[in-house]
Amino acid sequence: MKALVYQGPGKKDWIEKSKPTVQKPTDVIVRITKTTICGTDLHILKGDTPEVPEGLTLGHEGIGIVEEVGDAVKNFNKGDQVLISCITSCGACPNCKRQLYAHCNDGGWILGHLIDGTQAEYVRIPHGDNSLYPIPEGADEEALVMLSDIMPTGFEIGVQYGHVKPGDTIAIVGAGPVGMSVLLTAQFYSPGRIIMVDMDENRLAAATKFGATHTLQVGKDDVVGEIMALTDGLGVDVAIEAVGVPATFDTCQKIVSAGGSVANVGVHGKPVELHIEDLWIKNINISMGLVNTNTTPMLLKTLQSGKVDPAQLVTHRFKLDDILDAYEVFANAAREKAMKVVISA
Amino acid sequence: MKALVYQGPGKKDWIEKSKPTVQKPTDVIVRITKTTICGTDLHILKGDTPEVPEGLTLGHEGIGIVEEVGDAVKNFNKGDQVLISCITSCGACPNCKRQLYAHCNDGGWILGHLIDGTQAEYVRIPHGDNSLYPIPEGADEEALVMLSDIMPTGFEIGVQYGHVKPGDTIAIVGAGPVGMSVLLTAQFYSPGRIIMVDMDENRLAAATKFGATHTLQVGKDDVVGEIMALTDGLGVDVAIEAVGVPATFDTCQKIVSAGGSVANVGVHGKPVELHIEDLWIKNINISMGLVNTNTTPMLLKTLQSGKVDPAQLVTHRFKLDDILDAYEVFANAAREKAMKVVISA
Repeated sequence: MKALVYQGPGKKDWIEKSKPTVQKPTDVIVRITKTTICGTDLHILKGDTPEVPEGLTLGHEGIGIVEEVGDAVKNFNKGDQVLISCITSCGACPNCKRQLYAHCNDGGWILGHLIDGTQAEYVRIPHGDNSLYPIPEGADEEALVMLSDIMPTGFEIGVQYGHVKPGDTIAIVGAGPVGMSVLLTAQFYSPGRIIMVDMDENRLAAATKFGATHTLQVGKDDVVGEIMALTDGLGVDVAIEAVGVPATFDTCQKIVSAGGSVANVGVHGKPVELHIEDLWIKNINISMGLVNTNTTPMLLKTLQSGKVDPAQLVTHRFKLDDILDAYEVFANAAREKAMKVVISA
Repeated sequence: MKALVYQGPGKKDWIEKSKPTVQKPTDVIVRITKTTICGTDLHILKGDTPEVPEGLTLGHEGIGIVEEVGDAVKNFNKGDQVLISCITSCGACPNCKRQLYAHCNDGGWILGHLIDGTQAEYVRIPHGDNSLYPIPEGADEEALVMLSDIMPTGFEIGVQYGHVKPGDTIAIVGAGPVGMSVLLTAQFYSPGRIIMVDMDENRLAAATKFGATHTLQVGKDDVVGEIMALTDGLGVDVAIEAVGVPATFDTCQKIVSAGGSVANVGVHGKPVELHIEDLWIKNINISMGLVNTNTTPMLLKTLQSGKVDPAQLVTHRFKLDDILDAYEVFANAAREKAMKVVISA
């Protein structure tokens, strides 16, 4: 089969590789029908995650059709259409038993990180019963691909950890795919105002289309000043960081109101300076984490009932054999006006 | 009347001052029967809080007897015994209406900070109906003085914000009066293990008496290493910072487990380095804030029902006229083996 393989910092290839086989009775082999590329894949390619071995197939998002199941698999059969979760979870360890699947003792984020991932014709999914979801009849396949990672990440780590409430004023700092997923899923809870912050005016225009009530452009607008003016000097109820650099975290700690929340969704590579000398008195909460995907069943229901349309995030489409072109577009997202690319078999 | 007055950095006096009078219809004048000294008073005296005007009476804790009430006061009458909350709250502003009394638009922490405080023969309490509590029949007066500030601070900002749960392993970093209040009130929720961390072995011995299951001495024990060993390398469910310096905050971020909480109770004067490059993936929560004293009624009930005995924290007793001696003892707490001093009229 063909697979997109990490070949060390800055290097990747679309090459022939052996088709995965069932190694444990709980494994499921899935034939990929659609996959996508995540910002994390670009980080891996930059060499930011030295734990990723050379020769690994990248990718942790996708949908497909069950090709083969191990003897212990109960929920799936050959031919079933499935959504692949970016988080693999055994369902039986202490962390899984409290829905902290991100920290499963025999899983977590391993796909395309520590074991071969989804940017290939086939993928092996360990603990298939817990790490795959049946695809509802008639569901939009492009929308489903957004449910592997970005939608639950935005919803769990941004919206739920940030405690977004009806009527709240929230700010989302970063209008990339995950920030947009926060924007889409925050609307489940009817915030009053959603302020979207980014440096890219195309992304801000898209954010307005997706439901942002205000947009502020970094480098052009006085982001902190305008947010404080908009909130009578109080700040926002929830500030959501969706970039992963010190500057955006800093914006969030400056704009959060007394009694408010900072929900960090971004993946950080450096420490940040926490201004606890100003914040200790403000009764705020700062949350952060890797997605557990424990809300995937809930998100599938919102998709089916038309409460959210994540397919809006898809801007470009490619065939699997053209995945290197997809990477080229996604790696130059601003120039290409790209948000999410969908790659189909 | 006599009052303990801040006279600029490093200077205080026990001097004659005019007795306070009702200035607004919601004011209550209280004759102080017992007061105490807080670490915050020492900070003010060091000059750490430049907003405190010279000539101000210090103190934000105490109990007393109502001397006079303004025309709009409904809950209290002359002669009533009252507990003074360290937080003054109007009860009517948007923040008060969500029990965020710390950020009352016409109150918050003002006593002994922006208006004359409780270390005097009389004090004026604005918004008396909301800022005073009736003293339950037969309650221990020394225990009650602990309910002005340290007990609700430890309970709300340490225990409640930290989400202490039955069976949890918690660590309290700092065994001063507030850390001890966390220790006492955490036991309402039946944590499995309570690890107390401090540099002072007398305080650690007291912590054991008050319910700590493990103690670790900074400078002698490998605090982080021993906590990790005790928790099978996982870390604690809740790490509570009760000092207010970068080193103790850092200990907390090192010992918190995936899915756990850091509850910062300490008052900080400097920023801290947040290791978000390690923590972003750990699904943790960091909370901080000034006490709202919204749990004072609950704490009064625990006192009455014998669920907690904060009088244990009192190590030294003085007469009001000897308040300068009380300061001398409290400012040298380690040498004097002092925890809380009670000063009686």
